[in-house]
Amino acid sequence: MIGLEALNELVIANRILANENVVDAYGHVSVRHPGKPERFFMAQMLAAPEMVERDDLMEFGLDGEPVNDVRTPSIERFIHSAIYEARPEVQAVVHAHAEDTLPFGITSVPLRPVIHSGSFIGTHVSVWDIEDNFGDTNLLVSNTAQGRDLARCMGADNVVLMRGHGFAAGARSLIDVVRLSVYLPRNARVQLAAMQMGKFKPLSDGEIAVRAASYKTYSEQTWRAWQYWANRAGCGHMVGKRPGSDAK
Amino acid sequence: MIGLEALNELVIANRILANENVVDAYGHVSVRHPGKPERFFMAQMLAAPEMVERDDLMEFGLDGEPVNDVRTPSIERFIHSAIYEARPEVQAVVHAHAEDTLPFGITSVPLRPVIHSGSFIGTHVSVWDIEDNFGDTNLLVSNTAQGRDLARCMGADNVVLMRGHGFAAGARSLIDVVRLSVYLPRNARVQLAAMQMGKFKPLSDGEIAVRAASYKTYSEQTWRAWQYWANRAGCGHMVGKRPGSDAK
Amino acid sequence: MIGLEALNELVIANRILANENVVDAYGHVSVRHPGKPERFFMAQMLAAPEMVERDDLMEFGLDGEPVNDVRTPSIERFIHSAIYEARPEVQAVVHAHAEDTLPFGITSVPLRPVIHSGSFIGTHVSVWDIEDNFGDTNLLVSNTAQGRDLARCMGADNVVLMRGHGFAAGARSLIDVVRLSVYLPRNARVQLAAMQMGKFKPLSDGEIAVRAASYKTYSEQTWRAWQYWANRAGCGHMVGKRPGSDAK
Amino acid sequence: MIGLEALNELVIANRILANENVVDAYGHVSVRHPGKPERFFMAQMLAAPEMVERDDLMEFGLDGEPVNDVRTPSIERFIHSAIYEARPEVQAVVHAHAEDTLPFGITSVPLRPVIHSGSFIGTHVSVWDIEDNFGDTNLLVSNTAQGRDLARCMGADNVVLMRGHGFAAGARSLIDVVRLSVYLPRNARVQLAAMQMGKFKPLSDGEIAVRAASYKTYSEQTWRAWQYWANRAGCGHMVGKRPGSDAK
Repeated sequence: MIGLEALNELVIANRILANENVVDAYGHVSVRHPGKPERFFMAQMLAAPEMVERDDLMEFGLDGEPVNDVRTPSIERFIHSAIYEARPEVQAVVHAHAEDTLPFGITSVPLRPVIHSGSFIGTHVSVWDIEDNFGDTNLLVSNTAQGRDLARCMGADNVVLMRGHGFAAGARSLIDVVRLSVYLPRNARVQLAAMQMGKFKPLSDGEIAVRAASYKTYSEQTWRAWQYWANRAGCGHMVGKRPGSDAK
Repeated sequence: MIGLEALNELVIANRILANENVVDAYGHVSVRHPGKPERFFMAQMLAAPEMVERDDLMEFGLDGEPVNDVRTPSIERFIHSAIYEARPEVQAVVHAHAEDTLPFGITSVPLRPVIHSGSFIGTHVSVWDIEDNFGDTNLLVSNTAQGRDLARCMGADNVVLMRGHGFAAGARSLIDVVRLSVYLPRNARVQLAAMQMGKFKPLSDGEIAVRAASYKTYSEQTWRAWQYWANRAGCGHMVGKRPGSDAK
Repeated sequence: MIGLEALNELVIANRILANENVVDAYGHVSVRHPGKPERFFMAQMLAAPEMVERDDLMEFGLDGEPVNDVRTPSIERFIHSAIYEARPEVQAVVHAHAEDTLPFGITSVPLRPVIHSGSFIGTHVSVWDIEDNFGDTNLLVSNTAQGRDLARCMGADNVVLMRGHGFAAGARSLIDVVRLSVYLPRNARVQLAAMQMGKFKPLSDGEIAVRAASYKTYSEQTWRAWQYWANRAGCGHMVGKRPGSDAK
Repeated sequence: MIGLEALNELVIANRILANENVVDAYGHVSVRHPGKPERFFMAQMLAAPEMVERDDLMEFGLDGEPVNDVRTPSIERFIHSAIYEARPEVQAVVHAHAEDTLPFGITSVPLRPVIHSGSFIGTHVSVWDIEDNFGDTNLLVSNTAQGRDLARCMGADNVVLMRGHGFAAGARSLIDVVRLSVYLPRNARVQLAAMQMGKFKPLSDGEIAVRAASYKTYSEQTWRAWQYWANRAGCGHMVGKRPGSDAK
């Protein structure tokens, strides 16, 4: 994968997340620079995810500051920079306010993977409350200290909920983090419905582990969803060749 | 901002509110006349918000009566006139029947801001019951006395719920009141879901205050949403230049 | 109103009910013949409401039998014929399976008007259980005896719920019965949500009466919704001139 | 019905199930070979249901292995092969993750037909838990042993829920299994809502039996829905002549 392809995928990821109702006017997705791990790409402030074009992408350092770019960056770029800093294996990050995840951020009910497509949530999800260390704020992660506090709370997990605000997720590829973000609200809805019916059975830790071990980012099984979501979002034509395949 | 721009924004506001499911066949949004604070603009009766054109806008006095216009006005224009009369700082008003706010108007559960985008609901929301002072009615705010009673109940709040009917909201700009109205039903849904899960944590008064203090109507952050919602509503091309910016 | 206009309105009514999710592949709307009160019009079996064209409309007698038409009629035409027979003031009937009304048909919770737009449901709604008088059936109202039993259970009400099946509604005009049918599921959703929050306050009988008394089928206020719903359903161009108006 | 028509119907079935939100990026529908009962057809791995074309269809044996086809098959083809093997009368199978069925797979609440369109669910629905006989897996039905275990649990039922995963359904025709799969999530939603309101009344076994006995796959009543769903899915033009009819 070269840098140009990563940027193309980042545009597609923005459009998919908007079309699948993970992000709306706000929320963002970033990807680590494929060649320079101390850099990442993310859209400028003025571009809502549904409207992101290649030219809207800005390059950032792990301090959250833009690299040679005078455009206004997203305030919450520190969510991304702090997670990339703390988690070298993470290649892509999403922050969103997906509605159905929000109740789990303001109550004491733990979010658990309850459906197979939700397994990538992982065995544990913390709730980060910005008030704990920063008192009364506008709830936005607006500086490195807040970003690092969030990343610490996230630990080695795939997802962290943010009280009264949304979630952040990290994964080993853009496709993986988009997939996780699409299925996260669905998993939350199923868990909420099941709770209204009584006791429910989540996935076991063993099942979560087997699913993680058998998953491949660029398998035909995964690519099928990426292509499908891109088509639905109106950018199917931007999807390139599946890495590792000969066919388009 | 000149009058012409205000009317253009009012058309956009109508279309956005319809497309975001805040209003349907009914519900209305108005803006105070930018040059004459004792006047306001609002669409005629025959135009559902999704279909409002510039020519549908009528001018009203603070008595709720049309200014030199023989077309049928909306019955409930008195919601708007009374709020403009009582609240000189309010520049724009929405009245709508957004479905997810309605349960909070017929039960004793207080609506609270529970997500950061809901902070503009404010620290307190009253429920106005037209029956209290007017007995059996058709529930519509059909005269100045009813409008003033509603405005009194609203007090200095940003939102007031109307029992069995909907809500009214006022803000310092059209963009602000649209934004508040879009996020109000989402906040209500999250609170309802959280209530089904147990005890929930709303925003603190301090957080609500910090968010209000850090908000700007024409910041790039706010404009991003306005442009996005207008695009979704099919009238992105009607959005002008962001006030204070050089770029379009 | 002449017959031709009534048929045009019936096509529009079919399309609106489909687009507003009141009917899907099934469900039907009929109108009494404007000149011959012992006849009514309704679409043939093969036409789902969203696809109904003028040529799909068939004429029926109050025995539920087609008048000079060999096409297959809807099995459940007896819902319509029996209500027209029992209720001379009813000019239009809807039968649908609107999802959010269904829980009220299989539990003992009475459906109540809780929002102003739901007032036309009326003060009382019965649940008709076909099993009571007909034992095990396929739940469809397939003959005159079943239709009359349903009409008896409906009595002088505007709506009757049908256990495990749907609802039937009658009104003084096509516009009125469409309006009632669009707001019925919304009212049901609001009541269900309110029940999850605690005790709720429905409209009073006095409010229901005032609303009924102040309503007019062809007022500008009502026409606005008809035009809006038709536009959303893609048949706004089929809407004629408002009866009683000079403007189109 | 000849083979060619069966394949055309299978493409339509894929598109309908996608458009009606029964399947998304994943989930699949198959049809038994009309001339060779030991074979069935199903789309290749790379084609999400919404995007399935005739050329994506592959032929399989009852061992789940492709017949003269080197393309990657769906992992879970063993759901289909095992049901065809165990149930000679079944001509079509759906496996999907329809969201509203999922809570019933992770709780102890039995799914019951509660609405007339849900009667084809049948009198009994089991929940198959892959963990019972296979321990920790990725929850996918990935081989013949797992498929046969699922089919055994399904027994003579029309539907079987799969814990944390979805459901499988079999019927006597493609149209029947699509119909069942469209109404299954609706039935589940109605049951869940009713449970929140109190005790509910499901269909009786007698009603389920009467409905099954009075149903015909190619009746006008059934065809109406097939044509409607195909139209909504954008493939109405692919629907051929109703078997048994002279008119198109």
